[in-house]
Amino acid sequence: MKTRQVEDQRESGRRLVLATIRNRERIARIDIAEATSLSPATVTTITGELLINGLIEEIAPDNPKRDAKRGRPRVGLKIRGGAHLVAGLKLADKNATVALMDFEGKLQGEHAQRLPRKIPDQNEIVHFIEDLLDQATAKIGLKPGDLSGVGIGLAGVIDARRGFVHWSPTLKERNLPLRPLLEEKISLPFFIDNDVNLVAVAEQWFGLGRNVNNFIVVTIEQGVGMGIVIDGKIYRGARGCGAEFGHTKVHLDGALCRCGQRGCLEAYVADYALLREANLSASASGTDNADQQVSALFYKAKAGDKTAQSIFRRAGKMFALGLANVVNIFDPGLIILSGERMQFDYLYAGEVIENMKSSVVQIDVPPPEVRIHKWGDLMWAKGAAVYAMEAVTEIALEGLASDAS
Amino acid sequence: MKTRQVEDQRESGRRLVLATIRNRERIARIDIAEATSLSPATVTTITGELLINGLIEEIAPDNPKRDAKRGRPRVGLKIRGGAHLVAGLKLADKNATVALMDFEGKLQGEHAQRLPRKIPDQNEIVHFIEDLLDQATAKIGLKPGDLSGVGIGLAGVIDARRGFVHWSPTLKERNLPLRPLLEEKISLPFFIDNDVNLVAVAEQWFGLGRNVNNFIVVTIEQGVGMGIVIDGKIYRGARGCGAEFGHTKVHLDGALCRCGQRGCLEAYVADYALLREANLSASASGTDNADQQVSALFYKAKAGDKTAQSIFRRAGKMFALGLANVVNIFDPGLIILSGERMQFDYLYAGEVIENMKSSVVQIDVPPPEVRIHKWGDLMWAKGAAVYAMEAVTEIALEGLASDAS
Repeated sequence: MKTRQVEDQRESGRRLVLATIRNRERIARIDIAEATSLSPATVTTITGELLINGLIEEIAPDNPKRDAKRGRPRVGLKIRGGAHLVAGLKLADKNATVALMDFEGKLQGEHAQRLPRKIPDQNEIVHFIEDLLDQATAKIGLKPGDLSGVGIGLAGVIDARRGFVHWSPTLKERNLPLRPLLEEKISLPFFIDNDVNLVAVAEQWFGLGRNVNNFIVVTIEQGVGMGIVIDGKIYRGARGCGAEFGHTKVHLDGALCRCGQRGCLEAYVADYALLREANLSASASGTDNADQQVSALFYKAKAGDKTAQSIFRRAGKMFALGLANVVNIFDPGLIILSGERMQFDYLYAGEVIENMKSSVVQIDVPPPEVRIHKWGDLMWAKGAAVYAMEAVTEIALEGLASDAS
Repeated sequence: MKTRQVEDQRESGRRLVLATIRNRERIARIDIAEATSLSPATVTTITGELLINGLIEEIAPDNPKRDAKRGRPRVGLKIRGGAHLVAGLKLADKNATVALMDFEGKLQGEHAQRLPRKIPDQNEIVHFIEDLLDQATAKIGLKPGDLSGVGIGLAGVIDARRGFVHWSPTLKERNLPLRPLLEEKISLPFFIDNDVNLVAVAEQWFGLGRNVNNFIVVTIEQGVGMGIVIDGKIYRGARGCGAEFGHTKVHLDGALCRCGQRGCLEAYVADYALLREANLSASASGTDNADQQVSALFYKAKAGDKTAQSIFRRAGKMFALGLANVVNIFDPGLIILSGERMQFDYLYAGEVIENMKSSVVQIDVPPPEVRIHKWGDLMWAKGAAVYAMEAVTEIALEGLASDAS
């Protein structure tokens, strides 16, 4: 009993120490003790284990003179970048993007290639990812075998716990156990999640979500996505899938959505919805052509075309309504708007945000801050890489625990 | 440093031991050690402190013979009911209900009286609560001073952290710092929250939410309320207020709500909304008369009246849509439907639940279970009492910690 308790404490101590070092970038042992409330002796034991296992390394003091004043120089500790290399993949719409990241979180390489639409079967998606990892690692003179893990962000309904794809616009097949399929073919640990959840992870690590415990990320690309962070963790719901903001209903028996239901937010704000309203060919949706058509429609609206303006105006109103519903249910501290459609400022215009704010319950405390964060596919891929790195860290720490016992 | 760490551990140990005893009702020290992973020595120290402070008590073994087989009889521990007495109040609509509860969670008394509508000012609400506590405690031969704390569940937008009432249908004034006002007049700790959150607490302790970590409670009374439980805790959002499900929008620029906005769910399913549709006097809403009118309308629908049926049918559809939005955003494991309007089975009819289920994103995992829990005002008051008891427990444990340091 006693032993189990001690081991549990040591394991949570290791996690805490490693997270503290990662968070502070470089930190002396005594400052770790202060930050964690662990005793200096415990910190020395744990950092010793982490050093032996190569997860961290010692560095010389930044400024020996200043430290000298305070007595003997304090040796700093940092994460050892070379400890693990991970890959993060964003597969969405027509692009596949790869970020290679070391254990310190530094980008070591990147790669992008065209993603075929509606990949017809499981062999092809496994083969595509295999090829993608070959090419990405080759760029920095390595092989997929040099990776410790791979994170994948995929649009659609994903059960992250099992790495199971209920449905994704990228894949023709539904109900694909993607993680076991990949791990069978490519001997690496894979970690698969909805791509917007991984944007939320990237926001936590590199973006506007640093030091924010509760926030949501809303993205508009081909569809509308949402990632929810509660108490610093991605909220996944009871069925393990992310929030399906795009399919919240904004109109009873409303416009037909590509999911087959009516009145979904996506059916008012996604590309195909805008083009359908504009009487343009809906069948072109999702091709480069559709992108160009949506852009053309946007510039028409900007130039004063009343019909185009009316299309965007309703989309903006519906978006404000959907967002207000999230605030009324969830009351996040911060809303981050992201994604490729950021260029269409009708959705993020002051008017839309004001609409949202006037549609939430009015109390004498201001509604949540809305911030707009424009970034490209590489940041999504970096989020996927961080997701893999968090999982690889857990595996490494579990390895230490079983060594010790 | 070391001392602080040890004290932190002892404090969380005390919390864990007390929660384990409460959870198991009666338990031997050795079983506490097993359940908590604390060492038997630590359990003996902590239970010793709790015994001295009267929070727990020893009880003779249930069946000495059986225990004898396993060696010396094992003394059981249980919560000492007499340690603290708390009151829980539900103030909503036209009734005030009080539950008096001992530290074991056993009901010691109850009381109900009429609640005036729109209590005009802060003196009157404080006076009303003072009188209510006098009468409730007098019933069991005690005084308010015998209470260790009072929990209050109030409809409206409440900041539970501060005990601040942004808005409540029970009060005429907005922005009332109710907790400090009460504590100044009545020298007791008060704990104030939205009443539906306290239904959720009651469901956790006595109802369908036992051993369920993630669930939501939806109530329909004069308005529509929601309580969200995540990881076993009430989720309060960034601004400290509960979920405002009744004011999620189900129609852009839709029906006028009593909150002044348009298209809120309440504006389709609350009493006043039903009466308005039926061309009955909306000004009667909230009186006994309105209750009777809504009942009459319901029985008309049951009897086949097409207009009445149409009114309830739309309310049901809107309710299903609103509920589907919560599921799409939140994906709870269980939805509990509760409240006075449970008699109107149009809202909870199989058809409505089916509508909801067909409006959530379809994956090959079933949508959340929906369970209907009919209960009266006393259960809401019991939830408020439990809320007070949880807070009183924290205060007692903090007292132990400062004694020890």
